[in-house]
Amino acid sequence: MKILDRIDSPQDVRKLTLDEKKLLASEIRQYILEVVSKKGGHLASNLGVVELTIAIHTVFDTPIDKVIFDVGHQSYVHKILTGRKKEMMSLRELDGLSGFPKKAESEYDVFDTGHSSTSISAALGLARARDLCGEKNRIIAVIGDGALTAGMAFEALADAASSKTDIIVILNDNEMSIEKSEGGMAQALSKARTKPLYTNSNRIIKSAVLKVPKIGPFIVKVVRRLKHILKQIFIPNMLFEDMGFTYLGPVDGHDLEKLESMLYRARDLKGPVLIHVLTKKGKGYEMAERDPDLYHGVGPFDLSEGIKHKDELDYSAVFGKKLVELAGKDKKICAITAAMTSGTGLTAFKEKYPERFFDVEIAEQHAVTMASGLALGGMRPVVAIYSSFMQRAYDQLIHDVALQKTHVIICLDRAGLVGKDGATHNGLFDLAFARIVPDLTIMAPKDFRELEDMLEVAIEYFDGPCIIRYPRGKEEKKFDSLNEIERLKEKKAEVLCEADSGIVILAIGKMVYRALIVKDILIKKGVDATIINVSFIKPLDEKTILRYIKGAHLVVTMEDETVIGGLNEAVESMMSKYTIQAKTLAIAYPDAFIEHGDIDMIEERYGLDQESIARKIFASYQE
Amino acid sequence: MKILDRIDSPQDVRKLTLDEKKLLASEIRQYILEVVSKKGGHLASNLGVVELTIAIHTVFDTPIDKVIFDVGHQSYVHKILTGRKKEMMSLRELDGLSGFPKKAESEYDVFDTGHSSTSISAALGLARARDLCGEKNRIIAVIGDGALTAGMAFEALADAASSKTDIIVILNDNEMSIEKSEGGMAQALSKARTKPLYTNSNRIIKSAVLKVPKIGPFIVKVVRRLKHILKQIFIPNMLFEDMGFTYLGPVDGHDLEKLESMLYRARDLKGPVLIHVLTKKGKGYEMAERDPDLYHGVGPFDLSEGIKHKDELDYSAVFGKKLVELAGKDKKICAITAAMTSGTGLTAFKEKYPERFFDVEIAEQHAVTMASGLALGGMRPVVAIYSSFMQRAYDQLIHDVALQKTHVIICLDRAGLVGKDGATHNGLFDLAFARIVPDLTIMAPKDFRELEDMLEVAIEYFDGPCIIRYPRGKEEKKFDSLNEIERLKEKKAEVLCEADSGIVILAIGKMVYRALIVKDILIKKGVDATIINVSFIKPLDEKTILRYIKGAHLVVTMEDETVIGGLNEAVESMMSKYTIQAKTLAIAYPDAFIEHGDIDMIEERYGLDQESIARKIFASYQE
Repeated sequence: MKILDRIDSPQDVRKLTLDEKKLLASEIRQYILEVVSKKGGHLASNLGVVELTIAIHTVFDTPIDKVIFDVGHQSYVHKILTGRKKEMMSLRELDGLSGFPKKAESEYDVFDTGHSSTSISAALGLARARDLCGEKNRIIAVIGDGALTAGMAFEALADAASSKTDIIVILNDNEMSIEKSEGGMAQALSKARTKPLYTNSNRIIKSAVLKVPKIGPFIVKVVRRLKHILKQIFIPNMLFEDMGFTYLGPVDGHDLEKLESMLYRARDLKGPVLIHVLTKKGKGYEMAERDPDLYHGVGPFDLSEGIKHKDELDYSAVFGKKLVELAGKDKKICAITAAMTSGTGLTAFKEKYPERFFDVEIAEQHAVTMASGLALGGMRPVVAIYSSFMQRAYDQLIHDVALQKTHVIICLDRAGLVGKDGATHNGLFDLAFARIVPDLTIMAPKDFRELEDMLEVAIEYFDGPCIIRYPRGKEEKKFDSLNEIERLKEKKAEVLCEADSGIVILAIGKMVYRALIVKDILIKKGVDATIINVSFIKPLDEKTILRYIKGAHLVVTMEDETVIGGLNEAVESMMSKYTIQAKTLAIAYPDAFIEHGDIDMIEERYGLDQESIARKIFASYQE
Repeated sequence: MKILDRIDSPQDVRKLTLDEKKLLASEIRQYILEVVSKKGGHLASNLGVVELTIAIHTVFDTPIDKVIFDVGHQSYVHKILTGRKKEMMSLRELDGLSGFPKKAESEYDVFDTGHSSTSISAALGLARARDLCGEKNRIIAVIGDGALTAGMAFEALADAASSKTDIIVILNDNEMSIEKSEGGMAQALSKARTKPLYTNSNRIIKSAVLKVPKIGPFIVKVVRRLKHILKQIFIPNMLFEDMGFTYLGPVDGHDLEKLESMLYRARDLKGPVLIHVLTKKGKGYEMAERDPDLYHGVGPFDLSEGIKHKDELDYSAVFGKKLVELAGKDKKICAITAAMTSGTGLTAFKEKYPERFFDVEIAEQHAVTMASGLALGGMRPVVAIYSSFMQRAYDQLIHDVALQKTHVIICLDRAGLVGKDGATHNGLFDLAFARIVPDLTIMAPKDFRELEDMLEVAIEYFDGPCIIRYPRGKEEKKFDSLNEIERLKEKKAEVLCEADSGIVILAIGKMVYRALIVKDILIKKGVDATIINVSFIKPLDEKTILRYIKGAHLVVTMEDETVIGGLNEAVESMMSKYTIQAKTLAIAYPDAFIEHGDIDMIEERYGLDQESIARKIFASYQE
């Protein structure tokens, strides 16, 4: 019998011997490989935190002690240990386990994460609440070194430090290899700092530091790898006397014994503590260790053969390819990403035009304002960002781009439903939140070709701020529209087919093709429909749209957004303005957060599949 | 003849002798005092940067060299020196000079600021554009120590440092008094670092630092005052070898000679340079020096008598008072502010319940997520934030509050038109951007009393996330509604008066009283109107509203927002859903950024004054 079979909760973990826990770690790795290679999901990050998660649940009294996993894609081990072992086989499926922590799933999940860099803020809030309630439990945030580059994490660290409350931040550092840091000072500091004497006096530390040879070069090496934010923790003076964090580590994150002993020490210290843990992404699966980026988020794959590189075109790739092409002709074009070079399709751009490529790390706010500065300096910056991460730079969009009318092009990837990543990653609000902002031009392409044309028009022909939003994945159909630069230059909608039934369908982005299918279904029911690809949600091509909806019986809007603030309200508002009396039907997601799962199944659940849409239109038409 | 009379551009400044510039500084102080005491505006910050601004325009070749003032409320001296001396008398008036830098005003204004912490991002964009264009001008960001606490500034600093491009960040540090820092190490560092030798080797610095006596205590003292972000710059190793910034200073920001010499040195250094300048807010006007917060943003006042504390109640004060009252009964209530204790009316709360009060500095993102953690820990957090600054925490509102359904109450102060601070500070988008977010309850009070009731209901009776938004300033009328807790608990609208004319006016917030006045004007024209205070924009009280608009001839919405996404679209969308065929009229600001000036005059310009509204309604009714 496997040890894992005996584990139904952290209580069971705590009963194990060290050797049993080591076995457990390897069983969990095997299980994660099995699950993820079958279902897809996040792999490398979870393989990296197996021992760390076991140690946390051993040392801390979860769920009374509360652990928050930053980003949360590394929570699979946690889920396995906290009673969701079997449910892992439903991972990321509709009504199955989420790929991220969810309070609704388990009392062991403390805070719903998904976006990066929120854990320290949330933990500090919980810690303060605990203090005010006179309770004594521990609050732990587990955060990766990448997530620390976001300004928000910095804001939280500063506040946590000055709060003096008991809070433990575990820095899961995947970038720094263990070999390089087991040096003299690391050991000396680590030992010295955790002595009980420490909290009363730091004289011992000071002298320990001064005695360590080659302190300068060591600090330089360590610090470079930790990115800028954590610099200060390596200067004991800075950390201990000023910032108020007690620093423990670095410790080998795959050495259970050392890890546990470090966590026990941290548990009994007062005030803010930072534990520096070194882990290896992909640990235990060689292919993932060698290429952790490739094995970060994966689809199903064969474990023995590994992931095969596929050159399937998706919207991100089409965007990246077109941008490289345009940048070859236009030396003013720059590309900006916030730690998503590959995800947004910019790898080739980075290689071909490194001097015009800027990866600012997880710093969407800075990315957008910096782009505005580039535009003011005469460049043509294109910021590629996931729709839901753009929510991080909303003020910068308003205050630093739109208000300044700078020629910044923002390409919102992963707009609409993303599927298995779920509510935190869905891009279901962008049409609405962008539409509010004055002076923006907002577009969404129906296929790859329209994306290419929109990109070209936005960069080469438009002057002010532009947004282009497109979904995850492939185009559903290649339309045979000709080169449409001229139409797009005039910000015109595209009339795809005309009918005199009195039904006019206004669709945007990926819903345009669906509208065509719906039309075919409707025809079978004996009704035809006019279909317009609006292309622009701002400005709406009122002239074209009015021509068709005046005198129409039913105006249908189709968008992959929630129902508030997007295309349907734009159209309804226009109809009010021009006192058009047609009936309206909004095909959109409800005003709610939409769960994870297979996109087709979610669309069906919310009536956005072709059959449901046709049925609704027909019913509304007949009423 | 005054020296100031001879200054029409920075070229004229450059011709002056040092003594003349000192005289100029004192004349400018006098002029600023004269202007601001007459017109109102930002005082203390401008008095603090007189010498700094003169030195910048002396040393740098503006407008070829580009200077960005962070926040920008300290740009008066800059405006005076760059050809806008006389126009200062129109400061903050409609069509007069803006209180912030505006590209449209002058080629010397490089980036429109208003919100804090954007300058380094914008400067870095400009610097990169300059490099790509092969130009050689200097780019300078002037940023206060407070603005550096925002995560965004940290993101920009990190990126600037790793960029290695030529960029100069001037840290205008108002918190650290000069006397305390003229110590041995400061001098030693300052001299050592600016030696030409420096860029090749830092050995000299290291030994200089080590030789300075009492280094530990000094570092501690300096660093505490600089807040956390700048810590590393005091450790030469950190700054010079790792972060890549050359640090100069600290220098007395009121000593023109030293300042200029420091700026000359900075001008000729390569790579990112940070100059640490110590200034005194309110310098030269004793009352402002003593209480710089009181003299930060002021209305007109008597220069010899100073500002008199007035106990006029405004929305912020009413909010603060009610929160203190509620917190006396409910020990779970916490208050959170992002560096706006006094502005949001929380001073009394801070004094009375310091353990439940959290000022996180300029860190809106962290403020909102931390509040969500507090709520999860069982507290009842109330975050008070200006409407336009809430744009900084949009993702946190969506991802960390609404998605988690935590009981966080967000009070949006300065919602609607703010008047003299203008476009950057107007809260004209919040109803729209909040309405998009699922699971929020969004309210706006018509008067002080409704604010108090909404606050009580939100904290004591509601369960999920709530937003209450209210304007700057005083209530226009105290309604004689009774205690309305019961109505608000049921999220009901309030029918203020009924008429059978077929005109129904749905108003929100401060527009409710205006609707009543408009009604009186309409009655004189022979038409009456039903008036409903919607109170809630989400959820809309559809039942009550439907009862009145079914069969109505004209439905008017009145809101102090831009026309997109707010009350009018919510109502139009509801009317579409229920196929209500009445005509609609949206009274709102256009889809544009609204300029600064007197609120009454702006309302008139955009047809939101009572006469214009009545005229529009009457015309629409008669059509």
